[in-house]
Amino acid sequence: MTVDPCWLGTQRLPEVTIHASGALAQTIRAELRQTRRIRNDVEVALCTLGRVRETPLWQEVEAALPDEGLGAEGFVVARRGNNLVVAAEAGRGLLYGYFYVLRYFEWMTSEFVVVERPAIAIRMLDHWDNLVPHPRMGAVERGYSGGSIFFRDGRVVADLTRVRGYARLLASIGINAVAINNVNVHAAETRLITEHLPDVSRLAAVFREYGIALYLSVNFAAPMELSDLDTADPLDPRVIRWWSAAVSRVHDVVPDLGGFVVKADSENRPGPHVYDRTHADGANLLARALAPYGGTVFWRCFVYDSHQDWRDRSTDRARAAYDHFIPLDGRFEDNVVLQVKHGPLDFQAREPVSPLLGELQETRFALELQVTQEYTGQQKDLCYLGPWWREILQFDTTGAGGATVADRTKAIVAVSNVGDDANWTGHKLAQSNLYAYGRLAWDPSADPVSLLHEWAAATFAMDDRTRSELVAIMADSWRTYERYTAPLGVGFMVSPGSHYGPSVNGYEYSAWGTYHFADRNGVGVDRTVATGSGFTGQYPEPLAGRYESVYTCPEELLLFFHHVPYDHVLQNGRTVLQQIYDTHFQGYDEVETMLTRWKAIADRFEPVTRENISTRFEGQLANAREWRDQVNTYFYRLSGIPDSERRTIYH
Amino acid sequence: MTVDPCWLGTQRLPEVTIHASGALAQTIRAELRQTRRIRNDVEVALCTLGRVRETPLWQEVEAALPDEGLGAEGFVVARRGNNLVVAAEAGRGLLYGYFYVLRYFEWMTSEFVVVERPAIAIRMLDHWDNLVPHPRMGAVERGYSGGSIFFRDGRVVADLTRVRGYARLLASIGINAVAINNVNVHAAETRLITEHLPDVSRLAAVFREYGIALYLSVNFAAPMELSDLDTADPLDPRVIRWWSAAVSRVHDVVPDLGGFVVKADSENRPGPHVYDRTHADGANLLARALAPYGGTVFWRCFVYDSHQDWRDRSTDRARAAYDHFIPLDGRFEDNVVLQVKHGPLDFQAREPVSPLLGELQETRFALELQVTQEYTGQQKDLCYLGPWWREILQFDTTGAGGATVADRTKAIVAVSNVGDDANWTGHKLAQSNLYAYGRLAWDPSADPVSLLHEWAAATFAMDDRTRSELVAIMADSWRTYERYTAPLGVGFMVSPGSHYGPSVNGYEYSAWGTYHFADRNGVGVDRTVATGSGFTGQYPEPLAGRYESVYTCPEELLLFFHHVPYDHVLQNGRTVLQQIYDTHFQGYDEVETMLTRWKAIADRFEPVTRENISTRFEGQLANAREWRDQVNTYFYRLSGIPDSERRTIYH
Repeated sequence: MTVDPCWLGTQRLPEVTIHASGALAQTIRAELRQTRRIRNDVEVALCTLGRVRETPLWQEVEAALPDEGLGAEGFVVARRGNNLVVAAEAGRGLLYGYFYVLRYFEWMTSEFVVVERPAIAIRMLDHWDNLVPHPRMGAVERGYSGGSIFFRDGRVVADLTRVRGYARLLASIGINAVAINNVNVHAAETRLITEHLPDVSRLAAVFREYGIALYLSVNFAAPMELSDLDTADPLDPRVIRWWSAAVSRVHDVVPDLGGFVVKADSENRPGPHVYDRTHADGANLLARALAPYGGTVFWRCFVYDSHQDWRDRSTDRARAAYDHFIPLDGRFEDNVVLQVKHGPLDFQAREPVSPLLGELQETRFALELQVTQEYTGQQKDLCYLGPWWREILQFDTTGAGGATVADRTKAIVAVSNVGDDANWTGHKLAQSNLYAYGRLAWDPSADPVSLLHEWAAATFAMDDRTRSELVAIMADSWRTYERYTAPLGVGFMVSPGSHYGPSVNGYEYSAWGTYHFADRNGVGVDRTVATGSGFTGQYPEPLAGRYESVYTCPEELLLFFHHVPYDHVLQNGRTVLQQIYDTHFQGYDEVETMLTRWKAIADRFEPVTRENISTRFEGQLANAREWRDQVNTYFYRLSGIPDSERRTIYH
Repeated sequence: MTVDPCWLGTQRLPEVTIHASGALAQTIRAELRQTRRIRNDVEVALCTLGRVRETPLWQEVEAALPDEGLGAEGFVVARRGNNLVVAAEAGRGLLYGYFYVLRYFEWMTSEFVVVERPAIAIRMLDHWDNLVPHPRMGAVERGYSGGSIFFRDGRVVADLTRVRGYARLLASIGINAVAINNVNVHAAETRLITEHLPDVSRLAAVFREYGIALYLSVNFAAPMELSDLDTADPLDPRVIRWWSAAVSRVHDVVPDLGGFVVKADSENRPGPHVYDRTHADGANLLARALAPYGGTVFWRCFVYDSHQDWRDRSTDRARAAYDHFIPLDGRFEDNVVLQVKHGPLDFQAREPVSPLLGELQETRFALELQVTQEYTGQQKDLCYLGPWWREILQFDTTGAGGATVADRTKAIVAVSNVGDDANWTGHKLAQSNLYAYGRLAWDPSADPVSLLHEWAAATFAMDDRTRSELVAIMADSWRTYERYTAPLGVGFMVSPGSHYGPSVNGYEYSAWGTYHFADRNGVGVDRTVATGSGFTGQYPEPLAGRYESVYTCPEELLLFFHHVPYDHVLQNGRTVLQQIYDTHFQGYDEVETMLTRWKAIADRFEPVTRENISTRFEGQLANAREWRDQVNTYFYRLSGIPDSERRTIYH
């Protein structure tokens, strides 16, 4: 099988000399052997700071060094005329600097100095890959790109060529951590920390070549499943000893293990609550076991009642993460990172930013995003998420010009969209989401459209006009997707189980806590303090007040926070109902336009790519049509109010 | 594992002599060795008519013989004082007579003569068992009683003890045909007619002992899947030869094969339409191949567009079977039986009787029922279907005192509810459905409540009062189920895929053609000739007119035939909406009462049985509560009209 070279396929450099030693310098040497050369009289030198004086631009480099230093991952790039120097303190910085030059070489001016340091220290991808395919979820939970690149037939794959290719891709966008297995740790994966350790070690070695730390998702009940202990109580000395010994064994074969990822007391996964212990007790148990080796626990805050009764209007799933974790703030060990989903529900195309991200004060936390498009089109529909992630990263958690999410988060994590499909991501254009995620994790102020240009230029050999057209097709696809799916921030309305395609009432009477409460008069969830669930009160002022009032609430979140009558009038003068109709017609029309524009440039792409993208656009158009018509018909049948522009709404 | 002896467990006879020879007489001798004896001075003799004079009651028997004879399956039972004689023309009649006496012995008066002949010649059970478990449907499609009793690990089971036990059960209620594999014939099952033939032969031998003919479901595309033919065109001479040779090979090992069951051009199964041929062409192809060996083709009429667009109001799935098959009436070979589901949709708890069952004139057909409770509670909920089946069998197809369905059908078929659970049917009480099916197939005028008494007496060792109480709990459970599920004949509203539990809108925007069209003003499907799909016109007068008018339409079918406003007033003076609320509250209350009554007698049952039934009643109560509340809330949100009795409807 041919594997798509992805965005490292078209880039090229002139000759490069390396003034550095160590493992990652070796990796760069190996990289250089693979990179196509261009004829050019520029002389490129890569060096560690200790050897910068061996290069012609040492004065420029030293002048550029910031007072606080470059850190382990930062680098300087300086060019003057025909000389170009990349300097870093150590291997990872050098590697990232190398990829920086690889990416931008052709765009660099002849007088150029830049200092780069990542904004967020840990930049991670989580794989929801199963060692043994799950009967319902398959090899990769919420995976839409084929099987796992790590596991096959219940074992780690023998040939790691593809894993190495993946590590390269990730290093090229600055990712420095990967969790290789699903947070839902079933029986087989529980044994990754025992019988599969030699194989885990092989994977870690490949990632190590690219400066990436390996993490494992672990099963909180592992002591019971893997030994004859009859408890997993985090305060039980036997359990403490068990984990300590388990971590020690892992470190014997993976001395630079990043740590563990844990989903506990969530969606039927075991956790400390069984023993009347807190999440802090649970997380600290593992943190203390990892501490001697410098490891970290990523403890997920995706905790809520997944057996809710839809009749119970007093419970609001949106409140759950905050209600569970704010009382524990400050009670976690230093090497615990609380992993917080960006929104209070679950990776929707539109949600408010979780109040936990602003309100945790004493505990390190990570922002969690989802690159795999579980709720955003499943790599069948084009939905470039860069603008959405940037909006989240730049969200002002104070509502008054204070710290953004990006300022506050110590780590950023996202669920990967990569599988063993030839093109890595199922939909070729979905590569752009992986790319943008890595780049935004490094630089949360990066412009999403510029990132698309970067990605497209590094991915396709094409002229600038074609690239601009492709970028134009992709740039607003997230908002298009938002328009033709669930309206005004209300969320869900997806097919139960699969989460692809519309089912307006699919979750309305379920145990999952995700409802829209539409009736013949209105729609939306009252989460106000005054009359609703009180969720708005989890935000500080002035955010709380802004969300509390139907008049100041951002309209794209109106139905998330409020239950409003269909004739409620928006700022554009249209009623909520008319807005639902309008956005759904518009969203569909935009997909039609995307497809038309794509057809006009499709023949400039290779047949495999053309076919891949064309097929998916056709599917997206059909999906957008279902969404448009089901949502519009649903609300027409409820409200009895026709479209003011008399477009077709089926009865 | 202990296997429940089912209803053959408590019955007993005094000593019996046999005046007959042949294989089935041998079976009866073996049966007698298993039957517990009771001390009794009655002398029982079983004989073929040729040897009737060896018995003391030969005059009574000969006087009772009908002019048209007993046929292969009929028998006479005569008792006078201490003598009891069972006489039949041949083995099967004798076997059925034997079971008749086994069943009724203790109830027979001392002067007793009865002549029994089955009303319907072929009485069949279809198993939807898969040789290889289907990834989504499992070992038994729509099976709720564990795995298959025929297949395990991709092969026919080695130990046929359980199959023999099943054959006994079926013979005891007069079943004479069994199709062993799923009508959806996937790759593995396609090979039942090739590599698995020796195993099929072993199964046929066991059924043969009990006078039961074995049928196979076959794949219409088998010539392509099993040979290098590139077509399955029923008029292609190579295809004709292929099937002829295939049937010949089957008959080499199963000389008394009943024939084939075929689902073609239905729900994505291959069929003659691919080649622009008709169902008659397809069925006749197989019929001609089977004819030399006396075999029969059961060709299913469950044919409709399963890729319907919900926006398309001009297509009505209810019309499909009639529209497909009436134009072909008379064009089928004599050994074709068209297999017609009882209702025009799909085994709902309430549907009109399919017009095909009245209108096919020149073609033999079978009525198809479903013993497995796909849409009727899945053997979690108690739903005794005897009354429903009897209503269908006794339905007057002319609407004017003419032939009933039972009069017209040449065969009766039902999907089995048996699996490898210890008690055969998952829910112990669901055994009664299997029992009632067999008895009604033999005698469509049998009283369903009497059948419950028979079944209970033969199943549990208990006093008459307990039995009467159990029967009272069970007798009306179908109507209870109807009340708490989809209202007024509208059907579906079940969870997509699983078909258990409510999802009012679950199929409303699907491709399956099963909609309710509820909006803020009303609900139901207009199938009238005047303003709807015209389905009512498939019935003869006066039925057509009766269904056509909202005032004469049977109210339990009102929403099947009509779209009515919520304030439409029923004969009881209540509105449709209030009727929906009332029946749903009533249905739930009835389940509560069932449970209470069951608890009062539960300790008279063995622990395994008690636990089995109690657990299921608890589950049924929870299910009924979901149905009640989801349906009521759904219609309350749509209509905005409260319950007139102010019971709790969640908003």
